[in-house]
Amino acid sequence: MAKDLSKHQAAALDAHWRAANYLAAGQIYLLDNPLLTEPLTPEHIKPRLLGHWGTSPGLNLVHTHLNRVIRERGIDALCVWGPGHGGPAVLANSWLEGTYSQTYPDVTRDAAGMGRLFKQFSFPGGVPSHVAPETPGSIHEGGELGYSLAHAYGAALDNPDLLVACVIGDGEAETGPLATSWHANKFLDPVHDGAVLPVLHLNGYKIANPTVLARIPDAELDELLRGYGHEPLYVTGDQPLRVHRELARTMDQALDRIAHIRREARAGNTKDRPRWPMIVLRTPKGWTGPGTVDDEPVEGTWRSHQVPLANVRENPDHLRQLETWLRSYRPEELFDAEGRPTEQVLSYVPEGTRRLGATPHANGGLLTRKLPIAPLERFAVPVDKPGTALHEPTRVLGDLLAQVMRDTADRRDFRIVGPDETASNRLEAVYDTTGKAWQAGTLATDEHLAHDGRVMEVLSEHLCQGWLEGYNLTGRHGLFSCYEAFVHIVDSMVNQHIKWLKTSRELSWRAPLPSLNYLLTSHVWRQDHNGFSHQDPGFVDHVLNKSPDVVRVYLPPDTNTLLSVAEHVLHSRDYVNVVVAGKQPCFDWLSLDAARAHCARGAGVWEWAGTEDGSREPDVVLACAGDVPTQEVLAAASLLRTHLPELAVRVVNVVDMTRLLPKGEHPHGMPDFEYDALFTADKPVIFAYHGYPWLIHRLAYRRTGHAHLHVRGYKESGTTTTPFDMVVRNDLDRYRLVMDVIDRVPGLAVRATAVRQTMADARTRHHAWIREHGTDLPEVANWSWTG
Amino acid sequence: MAKDLSKHQAAALDAHWRAANYLAAGQIYLLDNPLLTEPLTPEHIKPRLLGHWGTSPGLNLVHTHLNRVIRERGIDALCVWGPGHGGPAVLANSWLEGTYSQTYPDVTRDAAGMGRLFKQFSFPGGVPSHVAPETPGSIHEGGELGYSLAHAYGAALDNPDLLVACVIGDGEAETGPLATSWHANKFLDPVHDGAVLPVLHLNGYKIANPTVLARIPDAELDELLRGYGHEPLYVTGDQPLRVHRELARTMDQALDRIAHIRREARAGNTKDRPRWPMIVLRTPKGWTGPGTVDDEPVEGTWRSHQVPLANVRENPDHLRQLETWLRSYRPEELFDAEGRPTEQVLSYVPEGTRRLGATPHANGGLLTRKLPIAPLERFAVPVDKPGTALHEPTRVLGDLLAQVMRDTADRRDFRIVGPDETASNRLEAVYDTTGKAWQAGTLATDEHLAHDGRVMEVLSEHLCQGWLEGYNLTGRHGLFSCYEAFVHIVDSMVNQHIKWLKTSRELSWRAPLPSLNYLLTSHVWRQDHNGFSHQDPGFVDHVLNKSPDVVRVYLPPDTNTLLSVAEHVLHSRDYVNVVVAGKQPCFDWLSLDAARAHCARGAGVWEWAGTEDGSREPDVVLACAGDVPTQEVLAAASLLRTHLPELAVRVVNVVDMTRLLPKGEHPHGMPDFEYDALFTADKPVIFAYHGYPWLIHRLAYRRTGHAHLHVRGYKESGTTTTPFDMVVRNDLDRYRLVMDVIDRVPGLAVRATAVRQTMADARTRHHAWIREHGTDLPEVANWSWTG
Repeated sequence: MAKDLSKHQAAALDAHWRAANYLAAGQIYLLDNPLLTEPLTPEHIKPRLLGHWGTSPGLNLVHTHLNRVIRERGIDALCVWGPGHGGPAVLANSWLEGTYSQTYPDVTRDAAGMGRLFKQFSFPGGVPSHVAPETPGSIHEGGELGYSLAHAYGAALDNPDLLVACVIGDGEAETGPLATSWHANKFLDPVHDGAVLPVLHLNGYKIANPTVLARIPDAELDELLRGYGHEPLYVTGDQPLRVHRELARTMDQALDRIAHIRREARAGNTKDRPRWPMIVLRTPKGWTGPGTVDDEPVEGTWRSHQVPLANVRENPDHLRQLETWLRSYRPEELFDAEGRPTEQVLSYVPEGTRRLGATPHANGGLLTRKLPIAPLERFAVPVDKPGTALHEPTRVLGDLLAQVMRDTADRRDFRIVGPDETASNRLEAVYDTTGKAWQAGTLATDEHLAHDGRVMEVLSEHLCQGWLEGYNLTGRHGLFSCYEAFVHIVDSMVNQHIKWLKTSRELSWRAPLPSLNYLLTSHVWRQDHNGFSHQDPGFVDHVLNKSPDVVRVYLPPDTNTLLSVAEHVLHSRDYVNVVVAGKQPCFDWLSLDAARAHCARGAGVWEWAGTEDGSREPDVVLACAGDVPTQEVLAAASLLRTHLPELAVRVVNVVDMTRLLPKGEHPHGMPDFEYDALFTADKPVIFAYHGYPWLIHRLAYRRTGHAHLHVRGYKESGTTTTPFDMVVRNDLDRYRLVMDVIDRVPGLAVRATAVRQTMADARTRHHAWIREHGTDLPEVANWSWTG
Repeated sequence: MAKDLSKHQAAALDAHWRAANYLAAGQIYLLDNPLLTEPLTPEHIKPRLLGHWGTSPGLNLVHTHLNRVIRERGIDALCVWGPGHGGPAVLANSWLEGTYSQTYPDVTRDAAGMGRLFKQFSFPGGVPSHVAPETPGSIHEGGELGYSLAHAYGAALDNPDLLVACVIGDGEAETGPLATSWHANKFLDPVHDGAVLPVLHLNGYKIANPTVLARIPDAELDELLRGYGHEPLYVTGDQPLRVHRELARTMDQALDRIAHIRREARAGNTKDRPRWPMIVLRTPKGWTGPGTVDDEPVEGTWRSHQVPLANVRENPDHLRQLETWLRSYRPEELFDAEGRPTEQVLSYVPEGTRRLGATPHANGGLLTRKLPIAPLERFAVPVDKPGTALHEPTRVLGDLLAQVMRDTADRRDFRIVGPDETASNRLEAVYDTTGKAWQAGTLATDEHLAHDGRVMEVLSEHLCQGWLEGYNLTGRHGLFSCYEAFVHIVDSMVNQHIKWLKTSRELSWRAPLPSLNYLLTSHVWRQDHNGFSHQDPGFVDHVLNKSPDVVRVYLPPDTNTLLSVAEHVLHSRDYVNVVVAGKQPCFDWLSLDAARAHCARGAGVWEWAGTEDGSREPDVVLACAGDVPTQEVLAAASLLRTHLPELAVRVVNVVDMTRLLPKGEHPHGMPDFEYDALFTADKPVIFAYHGYPWLIHRLAYRRTGHAHLHVRGYKESGTTTTPFDMVVRNDLDRYRLVMDVIDRVPGLAVRATAVRQTMADARTRHHAWIREHGTDLPEVANWSWTG
């Protein structure tokens, strides 16, 4: 299919490119006079010049050429713009193809609309300077660099007919997440997944420095990209028409190759992993912009990164230079008298949803289907009496997830991702119904590897997160199961995703997306093999700094509550749900019905566990959140029942952490009267929390009874030791909790002093026992609820 | 120098390797009977079997062979053990070479000590299961994977005679940070820096999956590694003696090549970046361990990852198999009757500080010299009257840093790292005295690139952090300058570093290290070009969850305070210092002397800014932390002075955030009496904070006056807009602060209602003005202090 462009075709592509470049520069500079119908004056110039020109001509070039192949081949495509700083470019293209005006009718495709497009850019009350949720056709902000290629692969999964182009800046290519994303091609199934076409844009510079990949020898770069498993195709130049011809030929070559790979794989003719094509595009940074400014080279250097002419309002030379630059695109040939793009400019623009700004894949909620989740009754564990049987919560969840995998076998819209921890996190039942995606070599001893597997395992939290974000953003469902401590690796990625969701929720044209769901397990209290480096419960703190409209945090205390929470989060939309749950055997406290009711409330009294008689307020509240703290609180309640039976103890369990926030601070926040009813206004509350104790204070500091709130949690005291020693080291153990109660409840019987000593003695006994035996006290190891 | 091992030599290496393997397995399993002097019984077995066997034989092999080349060539070497999970291996080697007993005299190099070595491993009260601060010779935990190679490069910088070997597991190689660390060779100067010898250990598996690099074709792997700029040398096998021979030959080859590169570069004979050698070692996972267990293949598969025989106490077959396994190393040949390693075993072990466990580079504080910092008077800005002149704080800091660079030009023990942001962060004065490290290609238009530069710029926060950690851990000084929002990229890395420092501070034999210093700038309030995605002040919250002994947070409000803070942190030891400061023009509030006094207190009253007369407590406290909040608070104080002159306003500025914590919670915590004296016990405190407002509550919730504390800060409301609009959007602006005061101070004059309305009107005027003009109100833009 690859043949050379005619002169006419090349001219049409060039006209589109020039139009896009003109519009990109116009957005950075012009407040008025958008078509340059009069000579440029300082009044036409924005008072604050903001934006990134350097990458824009390259993005415009790629967009222009994608238009051609999409239109000529009639394909569905999505593009991930890694250098999302070049917002002006993507906005320009969206305006040219008409999707911008369709999305924002006041920005018409004419002179008035062009004026609005220019003014609003990076202008207060206008649109952000990057490719943002506001930008039609976008699923990727590109502000924080590193995630474009992972997003592209996530979008391509289970979209067998989709082409996902991905422009990767050579700056972004230096980041760790991008550097490992190249290996995502070992997980892409040419039968069930779409294709990813990476376009590595080597414009040579980042903010103020050359880039590594632009400055290694050509042969070394070629080895690197082949080493990544790609077939690199090169386009290099700074002569527009020549580059148009080369790029058109190369894109055709790449798409022919992709079509061939697909055909062969789907005909069952290939067993080996295909060598997917990619394009290396080497064009000048800030191409077609000012060559030199104030005697310094600008085009083709880092100086064109943001605003190449910085003092246009004040400096008449700069103003003249800007006018010359803008007129060099010959806007009068590109737009008619009304400011509408000419036919030539639009000759390669695709129609309808084939336009990159209109693909439903970039507004994935439009394509989302409700996830089939079988009735929880099929998986729930029977609980006749609390705290007698033990189950591994995540293992039972694995059964549910396996069923979801089974029920989506044809639809293929559910994936699990994880950094090689799915089995370690005890979800391995899913392998009964689907394999682990794997296109690299296999050996006879391998288990569960499959070309078409829907569990994605790679030892990169970044890649897992990027895949799932891309999958969610294109409308599909998933779960990221991760060691609790190491989810911090993606702190910054989840920041960006939450910001994306926050903004996209405010845009009526964006349909709600499946939530991004985390299962954090192998948590701080049970890192028996690994110790201190694997102990960090702070991800919850991290996400709770972000937009409350988006963030949800659940700490189910047992198996059935985990099932109930899982069902809820998998059905939810537009949230980031953080679920923290254990994988080790854990007492079953609640029947499925009780679990559902408890999760629906988010926090509630466990009457059976306390010693209130209902006639008056309790003397003390023992609160807990998390599986291990819940066990310790129940053990403490049990000890109090034995040793101080006259004490009225209330046990409160919190599943939904945001219920602790005031009503005005979070949609789930409890009204004060409810909080006071639950925790009392003035009784001591001993709160055993899974994570850093001050988080509870940060959530509850406005509550009436806050001065009586005493929180125990993880305080960075850990090593390789036993489970009970971990809670003792952090003063979260049952004995310490009983001591806390005795220390805080006024007017206790004298006998309480002796009870306190018994508790202190138990801790001492623990220390002696563990040093000698290396195990927990038998009374702890064999404990069960006898309330 | 490369020649084949004699039979005798190979046997000696093999004896050492077998001894190390025996000791590694012993640590995982044995509670007693360390020399197997009697048949193994269940009582000899630990009650909890913990640890990672799979990687241990490979680590032992590399250690054994490093010993040989170190000894034969008389070189100084350090090894970074990427698969640090294999703690038993590194501990085994340390015990064999005698450094363990020197460090921990109770673990003697004899049978009794061997027994202790075994029992203590992963045992409560013993040592962690990973390579940890407790491990002699270690600078890298290896628990969270991804940072080994960056640490290795950081250690090699400015250590021209050092060889830094770095074992990279093929699991770790899948992480993003590791994937980009390969490119660190473009920044290593063969003249002034040491050499890094990566050893990619392809044992084929991670926890439960094969690894990508082990399952791509050999030719593709070779292209990849050459594409990274290396010359890969391969050693593959599962026949010990053959592998010993090949590995010895290959190590010699690699070291000959390194010696050649150094010689040529130092003789001035090379201009091009050298192609450094590396080793690819392909040996079975869990090599020499049980071949099959319960009819499943174990050796050479993922099943050997942790404990290959899991039920030794309960299952007599497993016990028998363990005994066979342990005896297969023929301990009776390796240890004498007293349990001491034989001469043959030790024949290649180096002497003194050449031993990997004894190198001072792994206890870097031993080598640390005080950083020369010129008197601040040379850089300070003159302040006759507060708030009249403006300076860019980081630019002035740049002058100080340039001088530090000048004063360490010969010592070469100071580096600045940053993700291509040194100039953007306005520290570019440093380029007057040193260049940016760069060994890749150059063009005539390039500026400040230099082979021997000591500013490290790469667009990877991971690599920046890893370099600086490696540099600090080997005793040298540095600064990481980073955009505030994107420092979250290294959240998890700083977690690990803080954990490392916390533990190493508790070890008397570890000398204090230079602190890890962050300069966070281009902060949340001034992301004019980038908007919402670049706004996140939460790194402070993140680090404050960690050990208070290690963490320090400073928010200098102006130029001179930044200088004073910088001097302090650069001289400090064993901390992680987070300094948040602006790069935009900022009013000078304090003279150098005042700044020093203020920073020494960490928080204090700015008498000149308030309207107290000293005769009574103020009516209200306006508190601030951070440059922008300080400006808004002073503007608010000024408005109050004009509009409500009778109100006694106190202005408090906080530089050291941890002063807000209670005394018992942090070494810098203020005693209650001091807090009450500063903030009052019962007057309204309006606190304008740089970051998320609830952080202040989390720090101060125990204080007497907490119920009267009202905090304003960033609440995730942002876009591309003007500086003042940013504070208005987040209710941190001067007008809102005045309204807050009026809303909270009881018994104000009736006139206050009118003043409140004036403030509300000003906000309305702001909204109208900005929409029309795209700039801030002139009264705001031209504001200066007139108190």
